[in-house]
Amino acid sequence: MAVSARPRVGHIQFLNCLPIYWGLVRSGSLLDVELTKDTPDHLNDMLVAGQLDLGPISLVEYLRHSDELLLLPDVAVGSDGPVLSVNMVSQVPLDQLDGRRVALGSTSRTSVQLARMWLADVHGVQPEYFVCPPDLTAMMLEADAAVLIGDTALRATYEAPTRGLDVYDLGAVWKEWTGLPMVFAPWAVRRDYADANPGLVKDVHSMFVQSRDDALAHVDEIAAQAARWEVFDAETLAVYFRTLDFSLGQRQVDGIVEFARRAARTGVVPADFTPAFAAI
Amino acid sequence: MAVSARPRVGHIQFLNCLPIYWGLVRSGSLLDVELTKDTPDHLNDMLVAGQLDLGPISLVEYLRHSDELLLLPDVAVGSDGPVLSVNMVSQVPLDQLDGRRVALGSTSRTSVQLARMWLADVHGVQPEYFVCPPDLTAMMLEADAAVLIGDTALRATYEAPTRGLDVYDLGAVWKEWTGLPMVFAPWAVRRDYADANPGLVKDVHSMFVQSRDDALAHVDEIAAQAARWEVFDAETLAVYFRTLDFSLGQRQVDGIVEFARRAARTGVVPADFTPAFAAI
Repeated sequence: MAVSARPRVGHIQFLNCLPIYWGLVRSGSLLDVELTKDTPDHLNDMLVAGQLDLGPISLVEYLRHSDELLLLPDVAVGSDGPVLSVNMVSQVPLDQLDGRRVALGSTSRTSVQLARMWLADVHGVQPEYFVCPPDLTAMMLEADAAVLIGDTALRATYEAPTRGLDVYDLGAVWKEWTGLPMVFAPWAVRRDYADANPGLVKDVHSMFVQSRDDALAHVDEIAAQAARWEVFDAETLAVYFRTLDFSLGQRQVDGIVEFARRAARTGVVPADFTPAFAAI
Repeated sequence: MAVSARPRVGHIQFLNCLPIYWGLVRSGSLLDVELTKDTPDHLNDMLVAGQLDLGPISLVEYLRHSDELLLLPDVAVGSDGPVLSVNMVSQVPLDQLDGRRVALGSTSRTSVQLARMWLADVHGVQPEYFVCPPDLTAMMLEADAAVLIGDTALRATYEAPTRGLDVYDLGAVWKEWTGLPMVFAPWAVRRDYADANPGLVKDVHSMFVQSRDDALAHVDEIAAQAARWEVFDAETLAVYFRTLDFSLGQRQVDGIVEFARRAARTGVVPADFTPAFAAI
């Protein structure tokens, strides 16, 4: 009997993707995918290794593997200005970071690269970077500054100023620097999977777009339900969900191309990137 | 900030529990639990180790650890007669199995114990048992008979007769033997968790009961959606879902007590079992 396997789909287990999960749950479409919930770095590895067929991937990892991957249109995790949950915290003015230690949260790829480029190009400093688990207190014991993403970063946005730390929102930093939206994680599908399963890719893409749209129409409801379990109150969560940019249109693609161009100059991603999309 | 963690709940990743998953997805309540989908043997281990708070557990493992666990009322996976997905297949008449090799599928606990008791008490044979991965072909190369559960067993129900194998439905076997329903997996909660979180236990219990009721009202719809991905057609799946007994009332509890009494005689579970329920 020829039976299709359910598409193996990744989901970022952070608050930023909770609205999309809420939409997936509500639509009933979870029955038609094999969903793996994990941190972005694990999902990156699984998609690149072919253990997932499709899902969100950190922009830097997508750019490194764009020969094996196709972008999905319309959906991404990013921001057009402040993002609240991707930031750099520092105990000293940034132009004093030359040669000082800067901690990079181990679950982040793209934000870390953005912070490095920004410190080098805008602030003219070359700190000594090291990777460590994303815990603000531990980082501040060992470093003068740190790059944080996800729930830890969102907490730091509200807590760090009370601890005498400067907080720089890296979504706002990128917008100010380039005038463009920042895409932290596009959705991508493996090229071989897309070639073999164009219908399923369309189905899963449509599932994500509908879930996103449904979620955006019910932000207060989602925030109220999530506030039962999270350290943030419903109002803070609703503001956060509305701050995120879950779209991928021309301006966001321009943001990706600009990020690729700048990152290629540092050698971390291949030069001459051209975005290629799955046929939807 | 005092924030509750989402209850850590197990879900059996077999077709038999797909209706309950469908109900959970449809209700939107997945957002309020941390769901771990896995095979019954892994879920057993996690609940006993305290890595899960609540969920289905193989009857034998529940009986072994009933001092740490409380039953949840109303919901279970069982059958009141044939179950279709728990069976023994044999290449020889059962009364010839004395001293012959019988393969026990490694994902099963309760069905394996049921088969052993039935072969000893009803057929008067003592085979040589060994545990192996639940693959019918591999088992039949190394053994004269095998005990299978889950999706592999359901396939065997339909395929084994065409391969010259006798198939014995262990749900039907138990009913014929004792007159009672068989409970393969009750739902249980850790006593310490129930003491500390009575409200959450009520919530999760109610979530499962509602999901089950919702699913039973939509069996054809669930079967049609699942048939897209499974080797069985929608009609076979609908028959299967209607054959299963997802309830836990007095007759099912009598079935548990009778199973406990018989299993205790073989020494695999403690004697003097009395069912204790969580306050709902």
